[in-house]
Amino acid sequence: MTVPAPALPARVRIHEVGARDGLQNEKSAVPTQVKAEFVHRLAAAGLTTIEATSFVHPKWVPQLADAEELFPQLSDLPGVHLPVLVPNERGLDRALALGATRIAVFGSATETFASRNLNRTVAESLAMFEPVVARAKEGGAHVRGYLSMCFGDPWEGPVPVRQVVRVAKALLDLGCDELSLGDTIGVATPGHVRALLGGLGEEGVGADLIGVHFHDTYGQALSNTLAALQHGVTTVDASAGGLGGCPYAKSATGNLATEDLVWMLDGLGIETGVDLAALTATSVWMAEQLGRPSPSRTVRALSHKE
Amino acid sequence: MTVPAPALPARVRIHEVGARDGLQNEKSAVPTQVKAEFVHRLAAAGLTTIEATSFVHPKWVPQLADAEELFPQLSDLPGVHLPVLVPNERGLDRALALGATRIAVFGSATETFASRNLNRTVAESLAMFEPVVARAKEGGAHVRGYLSMCFGDPWEGPVPVRQVVRVAKALLDLGCDELSLGDTIGVATPGHVRALLGGLGEEGVGADLIGVHFHDTYGQALSNTLAALQHGVTTVDASAGGLGGCPYAKSATGNLATEDLVWMLDGLGIETGVDLAALTATSVWMAEQLGRPSPSRTVRALSHKE
Repeated sequence: MTVPAPALPARVRIHEVGARDGLQNEKSAVPTQVKAEFVHRLAAAGLTTIEATSFVHPKWVPQLADAEELFPQLSDLPGVHLPVLVPNERGLDRALALGATRIAVFGSATETFASRNLNRTVAESLAMFEPVVARAKEGGAHVRGYLSMCFGDPWEGPVPVRQVVRVAKALLDLGCDELSLGDTIGVATPGHVRALLGGLGEEGVGADLIGVHFHDTYGQALSNTLAALQHGVTTVDASAGGLGGCPYAKSATGNLATEDLVWMLDGLGIETGVDLAALTATSVWMAEQLGRPSPSRTVRALSHKE
Repeated sequence: MTVPAPALPARVRIHEVGARDGLQNEKSAVPTQVKAEFVHRLAAAGLTTIEATSFVHPKWVPQLADAEELFPQLSDLPGVHLPVLVPNERGLDRALALGATRIAVFGSATETFASRNLNRTVAESLAMFEPVVARAKEGGAHVRGYLSMCFGDPWEGPVPVRQVVRVAKALLDLGCDELSLGDTIGVATPGHVRALLGGLGEEGVGADLIGVHFHDTYGQALSNTLAALQHGVTTVDASAGGLGGCPYAKSATGNLATEDLVWMLDGLGIETGVDLAALTATSVWMAEQLGRPSPSRTVRALSHKE
């Protein structure tokens, strides 16, 4: 049943991260052919922004070491944005050489995570991104800036809003076209979401520049999403079947499942262009490839029906 | 981190249903001694409304056939409300004889579920409840009226708001002190929640008379709860560890987990009186008794930490 609620957007753009954020956290690499089929099935289900892979050094993320092989296999998806993660200029070169037109860089709102994940201070990581973003923009690419640990950090605890706002603005100043605010360890609650979005708004960073990226570690991802939608956010990151999670939080249930998100948005009459049945079938198929069930509640409920 | 959000209540009363709604859906009956310890541990964790058992005929719910044995073992919990479910006058007699002061009746918003679950029409079930509620009130008991299938019904599909409002008002007219609006199959989304609460409000049924009872079958329970809180609802049903579900929906993940709820309410600075660590420890212990892990995301995340 579709029952709209007031003060919510008419349309939400889902930024599908399963193929990159999901599969990079798998213990073993998924065969390239399976990845290609996964992306094609996601596109066929109506997703139009599908983060495809990462051009990070294979030593760090061996699961995505086949980026050069995979990306050209996705060239037959007109109208589908296929952003790719690049950690540095070397990664950018590889991505641009293959014709990537959407780039993402991956920053941290906290010093500890920057140090552990990027082996740099926050300032050093921003300096590293500067030529990446500049050259991507020169090449006509759209650039997304991921910002991890926007709410809590496993080592630092709660992350102050002003600290996140500072790094967010720095990413935009570098030239990022949009941000993705990550609750990497899944601890956020709706008031904190509102506070961060409000803090960004006060500094001139409007909801149109912001995507939200919630993890369901404590079951909070969807209510946080609702709070973000109520604030005007229209870009929501999600992972088909709930694939993935944070490698630094082993118990993490991982990303918000795209199906759970689409169930809510469908119910609210918010347009996404996604066919929930086709998406669920894709996640059931992917779960078979991975040999374990999807953690998505909606996938489980829909796939257990007769 | 605690960050309040505007227009939310300062305090929420959690109506804990794990011991009744949870355990009645277990395949095998849990030993009475385990049930008694469960309720005591829930009370020690700060829950003050703990639905204890059901005085239904043992033939229908053998899992709770020990109500007479269990209930007296809970008499040492001053200040804790221990509502019990009664299906009819016979059940009421049994409950009152043991000194129960909080009674609940279990109605349906749809004809099909009334027929399947109560073997009566909606009107016939209301007629059956009439003397139960009247006599409970005469005896000084507080009466809660459960209303199932308030959003969707497995046989009838979406349930019209006006239909739910009609049965809700009838339960209040019988003398029920509060209602619990159940999304028995977990299909609701926030706009539908608002629409139902709004429809009730238009008929003079204020948020102070309403509890919400969401199931997490499609992962929607917590965002629906947020929508209800934004409407002024201050009573939320939840089940420790996410125990239970609907016997008519086998794939149902079941009730909203109390821990997932408390995580959100704690984060919003909404007072519940519940100690999340003690509650999680209780659910971990109960999961050991039942021989399978809790489906609660928060229980899993907190119990996997070092």
